[in-house]
Amino acid sequence: MYDLVKKMFPICRSITGNGVRETLRIIKAHIPIEIYEVPTGTKVFDWTVPREWNINDAYVMDKTGNRIIDFKKSNLHVVGYSVPVNKTVNLSELQEHLYSLPGQPEAIPYVASHYKERWGFCIAHKDREQLEEGEYKIFIDSKLKDGSLTYGELIIPGESEKEVLLSTYVCHPSMANNELSGPAVTTFLTKWILSKRRRYTYRIIFIPETIGSITYLSKNLEAMKKNIIAGFNVSCVGDDNGYSYLPTRKGDTYADKVAVNILSFKHPDFIRWSFLNNGSDERQYNAPGIDLPVCCVARSKYGAYPEYHTSLDNLDFVSPEGLAGSYDVLKECLCLIEKNHIYKVNCLGEPQLGKRGFHPTVTTKSCGNDAQKMLNFIAYADGENDLIDISNKINVPVWELYPMIEKLRQVDLLSEI
Amino acid sequence: MYDLVKKMFPICRSITGNGVRETLRIIKAHIPIEIYEVPTGTKVFDWTVPREWNINDAYVMDKTGNRIIDFKKSNLHVVGYSVPVNKTVNLSELQEHLYSLPGQPEAIPYVASHYKERWGFCIAHKDREQLEEGEYKIFIDSKLKDGSLTYGELIIPGESEKEVLLSTYVCHPSMANNELSGPAVTTFLTKWILSKRRRYTYRIIFIPETIGSITYLSKNLEAMKKNIIAGFNVSCVGDDNGYSYLPTRKGDTYADKVAVNILSFKHPDFIRWSFLNNGSDERQYNAPGIDLPVCCVARSKYGAYPEYHTSLDNLDFVSPEGLAGSYDVLKECLCLIEKNHIYKVNCLGEPQLGKRGFHPTVTTKSCGNDAQKMLNFIAYADGENDLIDISNKINVPVWELYPMIEKLRQVDLLSEI
Amino acid sequence: MYDLVKKMFPICRSITGNGVRETLRIIKAHIPIEIYEVPTGTKVFDWTVPREWNINDAYVMDKTGNRIIDFKKSNLHVVGYSVPVNKTVNLSELQEHLYSLPGQPEAIPYVASHYKERWGFCIAHKDREQLEEGEYKIFIDSKLKDGSLTYGELIIPGESEKEVLLSTYVCHPSMANNELSGPAVTTFLTKWILSKRRRYTYRIIFIPETIGSITYLSKNLEAMKKNIIAGFNVSCVGDDNGYSYLPTRKGDTYADKVAVNILSFKHPDFIRWSFLNNGSDERQYNAPGIDLPVCCVARSKYGAYPEYHTSLDNLDFVSPEGLAGSYDVLKECLCLIEKNHIYKVNCLGEPQLGKRGFHPTVTTKSCGNDAQKMLNFIAYADGENDLIDISNKINVPVWELYPMIEKLRQVDLLSEI
Repeated sequence: MYDLVKKMFPICRSITGNGVRETLRIIKAHIPIEIYEVPTGTKVFDWTVPREWNINDAYVMDKTGNRIIDFKKSNLHVVGYSVPVNKTVNLSELQEHLYSLPGQPEAIPYVASHYKERWGFCIAHKDREQLEEGEYKIFIDSKLKDGSLTYGELIIPGESEKEVLLSTYVCHPSMANNELSGPAVTTFLTKWILSKRRRYTYRIIFIPETIGSITYLSKNLEAMKKNIIAGFNVSCVGDDNGYSYLPTRKGDTYADKVAVNILSFKHPDFIRWSFLNNGSDERQYNAPGIDLPVCCVARSKYGAYPEYHTSLDNLDFVSPEGLAGSYDVLKECLCLIEKNHIYKVNCLGEPQLGKRGFHPTVTTKSCGNDAQKMLNFIAYADGENDLIDISNKINVPVWELYPMIEKLRQVDLLSEI
Repeated sequence: MYDLVKKMFPICRSITGNGVRETLRIIKAHIPIEIYEVPTGTKVFDWTVPREWNINDAYVMDKTGNRIIDFKKSNLHVVGYSVPVNKTVNLSELQEHLYSLPGQPEAIPYVASHYKERWGFCIAHKDREQLEEGEYKIFIDSKLKDGSLTYGELIIPGESEKEVLLSTYVCHPSMANNELSGPAVTTFLTKWILSKRRRYTYRIIFIPETIGSITYLSKNLEAMKKNIIAGFNVSCVGDDNGYSYLPTRKGDTYADKVAVNILSFKHPDFIRWSFLNNGSDERQYNAPGIDLPVCCVARSKYGAYPEYHTSLDNLDFVSPEGLAGSYDVLKECLCLIEKNHIYKVNCLGEPQLGKRGFHPTVTTKSCGNDAQKMLNFIAYADGENDLIDISNKINVPVWELYPMIEKLRQVDLLSEI
Repeated sequence: MYDLVKKMFPICRSITGNGVRETLRIIKAHIPIEIYEVPTGTKVFDWTVPREWNINDAYVMDKTGNRIIDFKKSNLHVVGYSVPVNKTVNLSELQEHLYSLPGQPEAIPYVASHYKERWGFCIAHKDREQLEEGEYKIFIDSKLKDGSLTYGELIIPGESEKEVLLSTYVCHPSMANNELSGPAVTTFLTKWILSKRRRYTYRIIFIPETIGSITYLSKNLEAMKKNIIAGFNVSCVGDDNGYSYLPTRKGDTYADKVAVNILSFKHPDFIRWSFLNNGSDERQYNAPGIDLPVCCVARSKYGAYPEYHTSLDNLDFVSPEGLAGSYDVLKECLCLIEKNHIYKVNCLGEPQLGKRGFHPTVTTKSCGNDAQKMLNFIAYADGENDLIDISNKINVPVWELYPMIEKLRQVDLLSEI
């Protein structure tokens, strides 16, 4: 996954343009996504697909011919969707088009202006402070014209038409956690899904943030509302910090239930954010009238780490282990969705576990941990609780219950409802 | 409001009699209340309207002709509803008719005996301890005979027949917080209500406590149960201490929802009492079978401050600022009731706020406070939450939401359900 | 009760056999239980009634003819359901059949092997450590053959067919708290029930644990599910430690409501266990598909005190006071079930308590505790709350409410719904 992040890192992405297309082509080398183009001007709910933006080069050159800001060194240096410009300005005019972070003087900020024509450059504040009076040559070789918005989709059929959604985005320029960790983890989760027998259908999408999810929803809402039982917005899943969970707007959907159960046992110190801390595509999936059960499982949540939306969110900020940890949590979530059932014990009263070898035949002070777990599981396997309810009630992780369920089914003591 | 309290303060009120009438006349000079008389002997639920009580003078005179207790100095000196008496007694017999507070030796207590014939005097305990053996002349020039119970009512029509109730009482002799603060604040709230376009009808009543609310309910219960959506018992609203809230018996009526929202944002350190701490007319409004949504918003709650029901609850204990603070809280409650609706955003997915000037057109680390508030408001404007629910969920006071709603309605992004 | 415990203590009980029969005969001398026999081999849900076990003598004798382990000294010395054996073994083979507790070197553990043929001896660990190499004569004079499982039952009819269940067990050898305290307290509760006029029918059973309750349920499930409104598993009710409550699986049945109310007022520091800490017959009553409202009220809960299932759970561990305290709590629970009703005040608005002598006729700062309690009771006597709800809401124990209810009914102010 880390290699995939590394490969996609240098590309200059935005919400439209060739950077998205190149990123999707790299992903398509791993998993068979379909690539779609939606023309500029298409009405998508309250929005309109914007013109397509592409850029070749950009710089600010001082009197001596030095490129003091250079798009070739970091694509964050140019404000996203900057219109073409080629002129000489004095320092004072240049300053009006510069963006920097006084509180993070080493960092180049990520800035974009998708829906209002502007041009601008982003620069580390410490460099900005070195600028001297004088003339500067400004050059941005970009194109903003009718084209299309590009996204990738893969529908993997399962036994049921009911769907699980994975959504991640491919619109950020050279930043690693937000957002190449999401596409990388989603790509490898997809490989795993493809390798398994599937109870559910999986809808996996690689889209530009906000306008992409709105566009996708406007084209697919009916099917999504009919079929999706749980979904995860996969973003900021690559660093080494603790885990975060951002609930759906309602807070009690099936996606929330799954995510909270897995995180509670795997990483009990995970941070539970309020939905008010939203900020990624879960906003669209949870908007009134959309109301899809989509939550976020992340490591350092967008907006909550200082490197966010700056050049410090780079290949050093994410790690193979960070990506693997998120992959593992999300895989367990999908695993649980696949394996979850409402269970009911097949006899009245407690079954006699001793004669099946599941309980000590000697009665002493205690029957031991495993037998007690099984007795507790059976006590709640009452045809009302699903596996998650039981796991929560008896305080045993689901992965310890999977083999226990297998044992009980083999001796015909347990049914799925 | 403080001047109104001052003007009404000297009058000797009781649950019936000319003190109530004079008080209502003063209020009528401000707002057009109707004054009603209910004859002695009228059956009102489990109670009967008692005989009317009036008093001219009363004193205890010592051997030397000194009026050692004198009704002219404070009408608290006479036990309310004392029957006439004119005789000479020795100290021991006098003591049986004296009421004082050993724990508050400076205070004259407020005592009444509305339903059992008695006579008695109230005295500061420090003065009682000075009484010497000997004979005392007892004189009470009162009348207890058939008459009527008096109350004031004002119905202010609004666009809807649905009603908001304000209830306060006018039966206490010279005490300021409990209870002239209630009539004063209610009078000025009424002026404000009269000055506005009204969605709801207002039922505003100035009654004697307990027997007055029971009498009023027995005559108006059907209309009140049909129409009242929220009500406030206005009592103890004049001092400078913190705010108190006493819920309805059910605790979750519309009145509770409104009061808790406003107090939580205006005075987050307000005291939440249990309904078990009731003691004023909310008892009647919340009695089984009556079940009106009437709660109390107060400053120092009746019974919970040492000056309560003594001569220390005087014009020094209340203040213009104290009264104004309560007026403000209750006005915000009424305001909220007038403005509250269930809201629904008019588009699917998040609306594009940037193109309406409600969101920055430059994307940086954060979209700023105001845009975030608006996004959060919209996220919960789902056709299920009313304004109070949204305010509670997004933790923004309703008065900050009013102008935001106006903006969203102007661009046709929001509907009332 | 302590004498009864003492009388039953020496008997060697097991889940079947003459020890159970003798115990039931002793109980029958106090209360008219019926004694039932269920033959070996009877299918009871997932279980089968096992062969009957009886024992006359057992010992381990050393070379010198000393009975170093002797059933006559303590019947705990023999593993329950040990098959007959008569042979000489060396120390190493003996060790394979010995059970002791290294952490409690003074205690003989209680061990049984009801469903797998074994023989074995239990011994204090300190004595086990003294054993020397050499030969030992092993002798167990037991019989394991077809017979029956024995239990006692008493159905005491009341005005209603609805039932209250008391269940306790009679299958443990010489241990006092777990379990002779249960049969003793249940016997005396039964005497009390027999002495009273009864609204409900009582089903009182003295059974072997687990196989006994499963057997009993398999024969009586339909009637029990139809009629039982609340039940108590009576176990570990004889020591002097604090009180314990173990809820039903659902946690909110009528039995839970009653038990929590009584314990909260009588012993507010009682321990609330989770249902996961179950371990006695409540497991069967709460099993899926059985779902009877049966909880446990105990003192030191089974499994939660070090003396549990050892020779230290002896006549010193229980006390007359310990037994009496449990008796009192359970009697109050039954009392409450008998007296509980939904109440409704008979008038609209607050009744005039003063004219009935229930409220002071003089109004001062406060109406006093008793009048306030009555007012609070009336406020919640709204036709929706039962006595337990009201007690919980107004925070007054039910035994203080019984006489208040009587007073209110005498003046016709209160109805039962």
